[in-house]
Amino acid sequence: MSTARVISALTRDGEPRTWSLIVTAFGDLARSDGAELSGPVLSAITGRIGVRPEAMRVALHRLRKDGWIASRRAGRVSYYRLTPAGRAEAQAASPRIYATGAPAPETWHILVAGPTEMAERLALESRLAAEGYVALAPGAWLGPGEGADREGLLRLAGPDLSVPGWLRAANMPPELAAAYASFAAHLDEAETALAETDPAALSDLDRAALRVLIVHGWRRLVLRHPALPDALFPADWRGAELRRRVAALLDAIGHPALDRIEPAPVLSGK
Amino acid sequence: MSTARVISALTRDGEPRTWSLIVTAFGDLARSDGAELSGPVLSAITGRIGVRPEAMRVALHRLRKDGWIASRRAGRVSYYRLTPAGRAEAQAASPRIYATGAPAPETWHILVAGPTEMAERLALESRLAAEGYVALAPGAWLGPGEGADREGLLRLAGPDLSVPGWLRAANMPPELAAAYASFAAHLDEAETALAETDPAALSDLDRAALRVLIVHGWRRLVLRHPALPDALFPADWRGAELRRRVAALLDAIGHPALDRIEPAPVLSGK
Repeated sequence: MSTARVISALTRDGEPRTWSLIVTAFGDLARSDGAELSGPVLSAITGRIGVRPEAMRVALHRLRKDGWIASRRAGRVSYYRLTPAGRAEAQAASPRIYATGAPAPETWHILVAGPTEMAERLALESRLAAEGYVALAPGAWLGPGEGADREGLLRLAGPDLSVPGWLRAANMPPELAAAYASFAAHLDEAETALAETDPAALSDLDRAALRVLIVHGWRRLVLRHPALPDALFPADWRGAELRRRVAALLDAIGHPALDRIEPAPVLSGK
Repeated sequence: MSTARVISALTRDGEPRTWSLIVTAFGDLARSDGAELSGPVLSAITGRIGVRPEAMRVALHRLRKDGWIASRRAGRVSYYRLTPAGRAEAQAASPRIYATGAPAPETWHILVAGPTEMAERLALESRLAAEGYVALAPGAWLGPGEGADREGLLRLAGPDLSVPGWLRAANMPPELAAAYASFAAHLDEAETALAETDPAALSDLDRAALRVLIVHGWRRLVLRHPALPDALFPADWRGAELRRRVAALLDAIGHPALDRIEPAPVLSGK
């Protein structure tokens, strides 16, 4: 059955880090308030992807310790859910991950800092980077919208932006461009294999496993750079095309009914 | 008579460089195509300001050699005029010198250069400075209007500009601010002395001498920095106030009838 080939195509870069994969699983399958994944269902999904039970246990322990997930027991079964902090992160990331288009601001603004001491400049630099600003030159940043005045910064806002090639290239460094190309190749294979399958015939477990793998590969790309309009990336960047294909694949695969997933043997019942 | 006191007030910083003063005289009194100043009239005006005849002869020689002025003789009298190149410079400067208001663009643009080699950056820097751009940061410049796209430069244009204090300060360095303050003091004295005079009673020679001195002091300030809107200068900069006072003084003094100026003895007739 071709789902195995799809999974193989999507995990070709080596087994993804289990804790990161589990974060993806919660973010895709149990992001809403009150949503839970039982240990057996989670084990079934990760097992389908090829994660060993021991790796799974270690990852769950770490995610609880780091405050990403919380758990409760009911009889012999553990139920896991995102903590409020974990859910907030997942919800903050989801517009990027499931976007069907890129932001296309009608207004932009540039901020320019005056001559400042290095330490102050670096602090500003990292604050603005965290807010999604694009560094243009030492002391100059580009952001979407009108922006707001900040003490000591020049601000010019307007609709008329011309983007040179060097900025597009700077927004997509070679390693990231290579990661996009690699994901594109995996997606090619996955699409080819899936084309042989009737999506309606997929089991809920396969649906869940495929979603998790696709979302996982995709979120690890899009969350590595600011959410910029396509015009700020190189003309040969395949991100816009991949965004459409990921959205179409997830749409074709559909959402699994988690309660119809055949549970794996209870984790903690050994 | 108080004109002497006005002249004294306006020349307090030491005798202005004669060739520069003569450029001012042509720019103010004989800027239009075909306009001439005879040697005797020019000598009368510069003599009234306190320029020695020998300094005058040297300056005229240098200005001819440098292509600023040309001359013709009619009998014993030389007539001087701006060369086409000299007139072009004078005409280019006159909107700045005689401005009654500052530019107030409704749109601005910022240009940002990518990472470039130092030599290329410096060449761009001086090209943009010559065009009146304001350097904001290494590789970032501000200009009025929409601007035009340039190979390799990012351009953002829009109406919404916030100007921080450091940029205002950078546009009016201490030496220039001091020169403005010094001119303001001279102008105070000149205005006080002139207030005792009925402008209608001024001789044409005094009218010419006063104009030349005021325009000279003023043009040496305004041409030392780009023609920026007042909002780009420090709040305590007195340029906007001085601009109004210079315009009002020139208006009160009026234009001299050059043909009514009593000529000085013919220069070359010794």
